[in-house]
Amino acid sequence: MSDSVFCIVNVHLATMNPKHGAYGAIKNGALVANKGKIVWLGKERDLPADYRNIGPIDGQGQWLLPGLIDCHTHLVFGGNRADEFEQRLQGVSYADIAKAGGGIRRTVQATREASENELLSLALERAQTLIDQGVTTVEIKSGYGLDTDTELKMLKVARKVGEKLPIRVKTTFLGAHALPPEFDGNPDGYIELVCNEMLPEVAKHNLADAVDVFCESIGFSREQTQRVFEKAKALGLPVKLHAEQLSNLGGSTLAAEYQGLSVDHIEYLDEAGVKAISQSGTVATLLPGAFYFLKETQKPPVDLLRQYDVPMAIATDFNPGSSPLCQLQLMLNMACTLFALTPEEALKGVTLNAAKALGLDDQVGSLELGKAADMVLMAIDHPNQLAYNFGVNPVKSRWLRSKHLV
Amino acid sequence: MSDSVFCIVNVHLATMNPKHGAYGAIKNGALVANKGKIVWLGKERDLPADYRNIGPIDGQGQWLLPGLIDCHTHLVFGGNRADEFEQRLQGVSYADIAKAGGGIRRTVQATREASENELLSLALERAQTLIDQGVTTVEIKSGYGLDTDTELKMLKVARKVGEKLPIRVKTTFLGAHALPPEFDGNPDGYIELVCNEMLPEVAKHNLADAVDVFCESIGFSREQTQRVFEKAKALGLPVKLHAEQLSNLGGSTLAAEYQGLSVDHIEYLDEAGVKAISQSGTVATLLPGAFYFLKETQKPPVDLLRQYDVPMAIATDFNPGSSPLCQLQLMLNMACTLFALTPEEALKGVTLNAAKALGLDDQVGSLELGKAADMVLMAIDHPNQLAYNFGVNPVKSRWLRSKHLV
Ligand SMILES: [Zn+2]
Ligand SMILES: [Zn+2]
Repeated sequence: MSDSVFCIVNVHLATMNPKHGAYGAIKNGALVANKGKIVWLGKERDLPADYRNIGPIDGQGQWLLPGLIDCHTHLVFGGNRADEFEQRLQGVSYADIAKAGGGIRRTVQATREASENELLSLALERAQTLIDQGVTTVEIKSGYGLDTDTELKMLKVARKVGEKLPIRVKTTFLGAHALPPEFDGNPDGYIELVCNEMLPEVAKHNLADAVDVFCESIGFSREQTQRVFEKAKALGLPVKLHAEQLSNLGGSTLAAEYQGLSVDHIEYLDEAGVKAISQSGTVATLLPGAFYFLKETQKPPVDLLRQYDVPMAIATDFNPGSSPLCQLQLMLNMACTLFALTPEEALKGVTLNAAKALGLDDQVGSLELGKAADMVLMAIDHPNQLAYNFGVNPVKSRWLRSKHLV
Repeated sequence: MSDSVFCIVNVHLATMNPKHGAYGAIKNGALVANKGKIVWLGKERDLPADYRNIGPIDGQGQWLLPGLIDCHTHLVFGGNRADEFEQRLQGVSYADIAKAGGGIRRTVQATREASENELLSLALERAQTLIDQGVTTVEIKSGYGLDTDTELKMLKVARKVGEKLPIRVKTTFLGAHALPPEFDGNPDGYIELVCNEMLPEVAKHNLADAVDVFCESIGFSREQTQRVFEKAKALGLPVKLHAEQLSNLGGSTLAAEYQGLSVDHIEYLDEAGVKAISQSGTVATLLPGAFYFLKETQKPPVDLLRQYDVPMAIATDFNPGSSPLCQLQLMLNMACTLFALTPEEALKGVTLNAAKALGLDDQVGSLELGKAADMVLMAIDHPNQLAYNFGVNPVKSRWLRSKHLV
């Protein structure tokens, strides 16, 4: 056996592979990886002797899970908006805060002013927080630059997070996140900049793995979204969408037409939209942190999503405006408590379905032969505890491509 | 200067002492402690030279706060109820779960069956999680024994947490938490046991610093509560109360009559009750974790509490049934998001007012001359961030009685 072989025994596996039943559970299991990929898994009693002879790791009867995946974050940004949060609670109106330069434009300004190193140092701290919770893959969006240079700067920082820390990073270009002050009253002009300048630059430097738009009454229209999607398609980049968060603009059906990887938020998605994304294989990404923080009352159509067999992912949506919660484990509890997902659906939402939402389900998201040995060992009695308990971190060990992380 | 002198400079102080204004802030401050108590604090430029000469710690421009206080927890218990959580989300009714032996009685059984060492090891892990968040004082209740031996066992474990870990522990006897199966249909008989056997034993061994009751339609009546309070008074123990969580039984006015330290939950408290506790100096302890987890809609009367100048505390209520959230920092955000407290009120709720709720405000809860040097150094730009951001732990250093904790 070569040095690159990894074996763990005396462990329960939550493979998240549906063929093994609830949680894909294999009790009293073992798992073998070679060169970072899973080459054997099953009951420990069936473990081939030559694997056992390599001196396996003792899982101490704990649970081994696929590394968690946070498939929707805005992890790179400058500044914070705690003072606006405080002002609102002191009775100042949104309008007055916006008038004083608050809201997303404040984050844009701070992000433009921050150096690449400043942004990186903040992003590394946040990514490390996710890693400590068992996250091995994170998606990071741009969208606080809203000019070409800053959008590129954000995406470079996001890429660097994946170079500096033991975590897979997928980057998403979200130039069409909000209208920058320079384009007040001229959203079409800004979309032109996104399509004709930003997107070609982003593609040329290979800085984005996907393209996203904020399609909303306070964001961009369905038509503007379509222009961005067309350009993404021409450049060979997959799309995803912030859709149906505050109203139903039909963004999800548009995303379905473009075989979108995911539609995210979707509190206002209707049955036609659910049907459309079920046919395109688009993942529904639910973001309970934003729902909680914004005190929303309209819940995503979970029953319809189940009925049409749409894969549901769960993510933090970590961002300074609507979800300042950098905690994926908490989202498991919130998905159950606020959206009535089952603990298994929630866990699937941060593993297998989150991988799907990133187009990575051939590589990560479950413990399966041929997939990467991205794994987390948890001190739990049963995987249903992950969505119930919160606070005491159950993560005991982590591996990325079977490399042990301390 | 003796070895026991501690000095920190280049630091902003959030003293939480109202005489210094919002957050009791002293920017560009310094603080000196001797033998574990604060002996000087103020602007760094006013620091006496002999203190500066002892070689102060560099606070690196961060914020120094009083150690956080979690003034309401049920930290000692056996087992967990994740499977019931899962069953409920799969559609099983509360009634069916209770019929199958679920609910609090399951925790009681697991706690009775667990050895003192097993309970201690679980409690230490939970307490350490709070310590990591900056908590230097925690209250721990009994109430999952419901027989004399197990109630004593729980309180001994709680005391041991304070011996094994660098955290102050205040214990509360909550024998009247629920009716044990042995007393089905005979709550008065159980209250007799609580008063005539448990409480004298608890007092004799000095195991409790206070006495609590769950006064609720599904708990104990006002009259039964009063019997427990009378006995506590005779034994010289202060009282507090789980009151007005699901209905208004008038528990809070009763607690006020007995100069209760705090009334906790109080979603259904009315103006008469608020007035009563304002006159008795009783703290209103708000528990947003339970409100969130139980999906309650009736909010505590925050405006009335402000109007009558009642001190509001915030706590986790960490317990396996209604708040499996062992995370005090999260409660700051929940207090603001769910109950519309201001960030300053929330922070005061886990410092000064939490100390009041434990009868400890002469010793801890703020940075003031003569108080203990229980302190936490946070990497924040402003204290309002603590209630806004959640996830990235800002705690950089902690001290208990000016002893540095790693
Ligand atoms: Zn988002
Ligand atoms: Zn409680």
